[in-house]
Amino acid sequence: MTHFRPVRLEHASRLINHGPTVLVTSLAGGRRNVMAAAWSMPVEFTPPRIAIVIDKHTFTRELATASGTFGVCIPGVAALDLAYAVGSMSGRDGDKFERFSIASIAGPVLGLPLIEHGCAAWLECRLIREQHTEDAYDTCFGEVVAAAADERVFTNGHWHLDDSNAALHTIHHLGGGNFVRASNTVQAKPLA
Amino acid sequence: MTHFRPVRLEHASRLINHGPTVLVTSLAGGRRNVMAAAWSMPVEFTPPRIAIVIDKHTFTRELATASGTFGVCIPGVAALDLAYAVGSMSGRDGDKFERFSIASIAGPVLGLPLIEHGCAAWLECRLIREQHTEDAYDTCFGEVVAAAADERVFTNGHWHLDDSNAALHTIHHLGGGNFVRASNTVQAKPLA
Repeated sequence: MTHFRPVRLEHASRLINHGPTVLVTSLAGGRRNVMAAAWSMPVEFTPPRIAIVIDKHTFTRELATASGTFGVCIPGVAALDLAYAVGSMSGRDGDKFERFSIASIAGPVLGLPLIEHGCAAWLECRLIREQHTEDAYDTCFGEVVAAAADERVFTNGHWHLDDSNAALHTIHHLGGGNFVRASNTVQAKPLA
Repeated sequence: MTHFRPVRLEHASRLINHGPTVLVTSLAGGRRNVMAAAWSMPVEFTPPRIAIVIDKHTFTRELATASGTFGVCIPGVAALDLAYAVGSMSGRDGDKFERFSIASIAGPVLGLPLIEHGCAAWLECRLIREQHTEDAYDTCFGEVVAAAADERVFTNGHWHLDDSNAALHTIHHLGGGNFVRASNTVQAKPLA
């Protein structure tokens, strides 16, 4: 039974507001891939748009450019080892979904392979072609056209991170396979 | 006594690799400002380049465009309330350094105001002018020309997050004044 529920598009950018490391999925011409990406950020709430760095030499970039689409899955602590594993080999050397026995669903709008098991949320994105920034900075812009999140950790447009859902807290890559996990939510206090 | 030590430029992008919320500082024509920004990411390690979203209506954007420079300070848990406070008012309504009694130093290369107290690291950046992405996505690119970090939390190009330096663990904004803190470092394990 899935705990994933649709996220309204005006709330989709909040899914990556806090800088989690994500998994980028892609599909074109019958080939598919998944890679890890530490470098992504929202650039707008409405319409929901994001920027993500996808190196021009990667198989993911090839597929995303060919299809004009890419998926973003947000791994939880439960998928930490998996996130590092898929970030450490190329999809040109074999299908990583098979290699690591990763279950995927087909996205509702773009049909992209999306991962729910061990993940907190996913987004389907259309690539907004920006040739210069893609070439100069490997920075790809995308518009979110569908999103969903595990209701145990994100509901009504807000993250709820506490002891009850520690396995779905987001992970944030420091480098070299070292990560930090997101803590429970803490609220800022007004300054005098 | 400061615990800040220079960070080699090839390691500078690692300071924001894990998606922390940052403080953006600026200085032009004798006016200065500091604002919070949740949306930033590295785009390259060498040369160290980053992208950051700075709304075109902000005072920070006005100063950064005028000077062609901006600073990035990385608040720790100790500066969580401050980060939210400086993100909740405009520098056009008064100098936030005075308002919140924020001590700053002058950056070594660009002379930008930089905050060390309560922060884990800082970077001085030159704005790389990209008119189209600035206009269309409020996305500003910058090249890091100087960086430093508190040696208690970042040394030899690596973050070291543990119980001994919890006040300097980075903070990550979920929205509406809700944050998560970075946990102690955890290491990914190889998958079979």
